[in-house]
Amino acid sequence: MTFSQPLVARHLFGPGPGNPYPEATAALGHPLLGHLDPAFLALMDETCDHLRQVWGTQNRRTLPLSATGSAGMEAGFVNTVEPGDVVVVGVNGLFGQRMCDVAARCGAEVIPVEFDWGTPVDPQRLADAHPNPKVIAAVHAETSTGVRSDIKALGELKDDALLLVDAVTAIGGIELKADDWGIDVGYAGTQKCLGVPPGLAPFTISERAWERRVQKPQSWYLDLGLLGGYLDSDGTGGGRTYHHTAPTAMVAALHAGLERILAEGLDAVIARHAKAGRLLQEGLQEMGLELFAQEGSRLPDLTTVKVPEGVDAGAVRGELLERFNIEIGAGAGKFAKSVWRIGLMGPNASEDSAELVLAALRAVLKR
Amino acid sequence: MTFSQPLVARHLFGPGPGNPYPEATAALGHPLLGHLDPAFLALMDETCDHLRQVWGTQNRRTLPLSATGSAGMEAGFVNTVEPGDVVVVGVNGLFGQRMCDVAARCGAEVIPVEFDWGTPVDPQRLADAHPNPKVIAAVHAETSTGVRSDIKALGELKDDALLLVDAVTAIGGIELKADDWGIDVGYAGTQKCLGVPPGLAPFTISERAWERRVQKPQSWYLDLGLLGGYLDSDGTGGGRTYHHTAPTAMVAALHAGLERILAEGLDAVIARHAKAGRLLQEGLQEMGLELFAQEGSRLPDLTTVKVPEGVDAGAVRGELLERFNIEIGAGAGKFAKSVWRIGLMGPNASEDSAELVLAALRAVLKR
Repeated sequence: MTFSQPLVARHLFGPGPGNPYPEATAALGHPLLGHLDPAFLALMDETCDHLRQVWGTQNRRTLPLSATGSAGMEAGFVNTVEPGDVVVVGVNGLFGQRMCDVAARCGAEVIPVEFDWGTPVDPQRLADAHPNPKVIAAVHAETSTGVRSDIKALGELKDDALLLVDAVTAIGGIELKADDWGIDVGYAGTQKCLGVPPGLAPFTISERAWERRVQKPQSWYLDLGLLGGYLDSDGTGGGRTYHHTAPTAMVAALHAGLERILAEGLDAVIARHAKAGRLLQEGLQEMGLELFAQEGSRLPDLTTVKVPEGVDAGAVRGELLERFNIEIGAGAGKFAKSVWRIGLMGPNASEDSAELVLAALRAVLKR
Repeated sequence: MTFSQPLVARHLFGPGPGNPYPEATAALGHPLLGHLDPAFLALMDETCDHLRQVWGTQNRRTLPLSATGSAGMEAGFVNTVEPGDVVVVGVNGLFGQRMCDVAARCGAEVIPVEFDWGTPVDPQRLADAHPNPKVIAAVHAETSTGVRSDIKALGELKDDALLLVDAVTAIGGIELKADDWGIDVGYAGTQKCLGVPPGLAPFTISERAWERRVQKPQSWYLDLGLLGGYLDSDGTGGGRTYHHTAPTAMVAALHAGLERILAEGLDAVIARHAKAGRLLQEGLQEMGLELFAQEGSRLPDLTTVKVPEGVDAGAVRGELLERFNIEIGAGAGKFAKSVWRIGLMGPNASEDSAELVLAALRAVLKR
């Protein structure tokens, strides 16, 4: 009846989850708190404060949603889009495609603006796609391709539209300034650069978007109006009403991960991600491999590299896992067999992790 | 920058979360696995197998959804109900009310059938409420009132309707026979009698419901058709396609909690809940307190008790927390100040927990 396999400890160098910070793992083992315990509500309030720092926002409504990053995407759309609303979506990878699907399920008139995978979205083309959309949506850091798009430029062009941004692979790893850049709705995940296990979606919404939100979203679980009664993190105290049972262990882990990041300093953490990514990308190129993402738009925390001619992409991943306990990711969509994705996120954004994955790849590829 | 408050260890005797089994907490600290790692997929498959046992089902599509129990409710409705479908809901507490709200957001024509809080639903009245509903929905164990309803009898009367059941406070604590009773769609939570932290929704759907499911639900995140590609737990192997990043630490905890339960024996665990609840309920009555739930329909795992005349319900809860680190729950809805809810779930379904909460209540109430 017991689980017969021994535990394995992996180097999680794929597109996520990455290995958590030890502080986050330790917090999962703390005594569990009830979701209405004053001690937990204090922890939740601090978590929301810390999230504001990594989002670069003063938004009062900044919180961890009780589901993974993809539910964050759904929360973004169900709370802003009603049937017939026009939504312009920049599509330069899998997560842009997913945005179109999710927005369409809200009844939106979706205008996808396509770009080659491996390239960033062009903010001007998004702005020109429709004279007056309700929402312009784009992915800051495309997890499927390892590409960074210029959200700041998009914010300058958004006009009356709400700017909805996927920051799943951005938050805590690259520069992210929600307020300065004019992000109205943002969602992220915990399992990438924040160095926390998957299970929560850090979320933020501006006053401007809040005022224009859907009053009764099709989702009860992700209805921000109902969630607000529980969160109430404006400091006025009082009515912390029950909505659903918050995943208290996961919130404790997020709190601990965020404290680890803020103790190091957010700028230092971002610089560490930049350095590890540079080392990895230089090393891959020295090995004679070709990077997939367009130069100038490459994410440091998630590197995409082309599988060399004649090499079995899956066999290499299997050997890395078997020999070295190293997980790297396959490519996404039509690049499943022709691209690898290598993430150095959270605690793995380090020189030793970069050297380890390079050494293992050299050994397997015999380069 | 560090969290300034010391950790507190609570006796979680409220309506949930309860204290987790130590095996579940320990599993949260295991090395994190990626959601596509063969070792994790094996763990997930075992978890689904174990879930089938606690659900009492052979349903192939039995899995932990990546959000809390309330998202399980939403998954139940978005996958079975389309605009105009008739949904009959038994409403004898907060969670029946919530079902009406969630079903209405799917465009259902909702027929609520009301019962006094503290009493079970009458299956015949539900069956008589409409000649041909698409769905009949009811709560097996009403967390808001501590009442058990007769799902078996409802299954015998359901006719052509799909039977959708909330088993959040039932699973792993009282008898639950999804297949024998004709449950077509069931959802639960991990944080009650399963003794695992909150964050996942154990879910099961019959072939009959699967064939009549909504082809493109309004929720992408909870679309069982898309989730099926990742789960694929029919043993045929092959296409485990990415849907979203599973909360791997939480799944490991659920796996460990379920193994703990199955090692003890599900019947023994249910008997342990029954015994602890009986001790508690007898002790409360010996203390001169009056139980809220109707005799004959009282849940053993969640006991509701009336606040004595002249006693400040919140002050008592506060003193229990401060003096004894004991959390009990307030009543729900209009009974917030006149009822307490005391849960003895998972590892807390024990003689010592029953005696502890009784002793603490005696001390605070001076009885």
